[in-house]
Amino acid sequence: MTRPQMDFWFEFASTYSYLSVMRLPARAAEAGITVRWRPFLLGPIFAAQGWDTSPFKIYAAKGNYMWRDMERRCAARGLTFKRSNTMPQHSVLAARTAQLALEHPQGIAFCQNVYLMQFAEGLNIADRSVIAACLDAAKLPPDLIDQAQADANKHRLRDTTEEAMRRGIFGAPSFTVEDELFWGDDQLDTALDWAQRHAA
Amino acid sequence: MTRPQMDFWFEFASTYSYLSVMRLPARAAEAGITVRWRPFLLGPIFAAQGWDTSPFKIYAAKGNYMWRDMERRCAARGLTFKRSNTMPQHSVLAARTAQLALEHPQGIAFCQNVYLMQFAEGLNIADRSVIAACLDAAKLPPDLIDQAQADANKHRLRDTTEEAMRRGIFGAPSFTVEDELFWGDDQLDTALDWAQRHAA
Repeated sequence: MTRPQMDFWFEFASTYSYLSVMRLPARAAEAGITVRWRPFLLGPIFAAQGWDTSPFKIYAAKGNYMWRDMERRCAARGLTFKRSNTMPQHSVLAARTAQLALEHPQGIAFCQNVYLMQFAEGLNIADRSVIAACLDAAKLPPDLIDQAQADANKHRLRDTTEEAMRRGIFGAPSFTVEDELFWGDDQLDTALDWAQRHAA
Repeated sequence: MTRPQMDFWFEFASTYSYLSVMRLPARAAEAGITVRWRPFLLGPIFAAQGWDTSPFKIYAAKGNYMWRDMERRCAARGLTFKRSNTMPQHSVLAARTAQLALEHPQGIAFCQNVYLMQFAEGLNIADRSVIAACLDAAKLPPDLIDQAQADANKHRLRDTTEEAMRRGIFGAPSFTVEDELFWGDDQLDTALDWAQRHAA
């Protein structure tokens, strides 16, 4: 029997992705699920439905709710969380670098570092020095940042984002098990459970 | 010590409200929380943010996801669920009648009947005979439908909807414990837990 698999779709600018990025590795290990980490960009997906920024900026009530909800959830999990005025941050540099980082075992630590820098430390992840510090803390080579600017790597991020759209993904975090889509950190355990029960 | 309290905000046209309406009574009783059931209308709230119908109609990816997600959730809970082409249904008659029904102990059964008619049976809750059947099955007087058309009762629904908006409610189901807002059936237990821990 093959080990059950799941794809994890996350966007570095997404607050709720922070929650899943921090807890998924331990939960997936417990559940015995192999997870493919797939950074993508929500910007083009939002643009396709007529939004020029995050729905949390466009719809004030949703935005106000999200900040308070994130505060409560992070407090309950012992995660530091700072509200930020610059939301959403530009996440392209982080996503491109993550694609290469995730080819190494320390890639997950890199991703977690980026979320901590942004949401616990309040730093700007569009800043090259912040991404460099995240690589360094994960003991990954600093030149991944430059390698990440190669055309093939840029195209890969575009392809992943197009695949997300084709799969009907409209927010982050999302989880897919074959054609089944689960949206939101609240659905993380449901998705793992689905992967277990529907393993080939 | 006063018994902990929570307000439960639901919209009769809302698929996810069905999930909470069916399970909240048992969960709240277990948790020892007194719940005030507050039917309201999402239409005016959506209109205020520029939507002329449900976001599940406006944003196809969200809509497709919702139907599949509801199917999975209902299957997991043993609830019958039918996809419908007429979404969202007109819920004003149901909401106005519910306000009066909820003054009786059988009010919750009435509300559950309305959701079952709509989402398990595929019937139209804007139809007077459907609402009459829901009253009858809950052993409530049939003339509540006519009483529900009184101006004072109409104004009450408008006032509740305005209060929902002032509280920052943007979707259903929602739960409030004093000024804390929780959105979505996924947050039902979190809201009950909050009510317990923050009881006066």
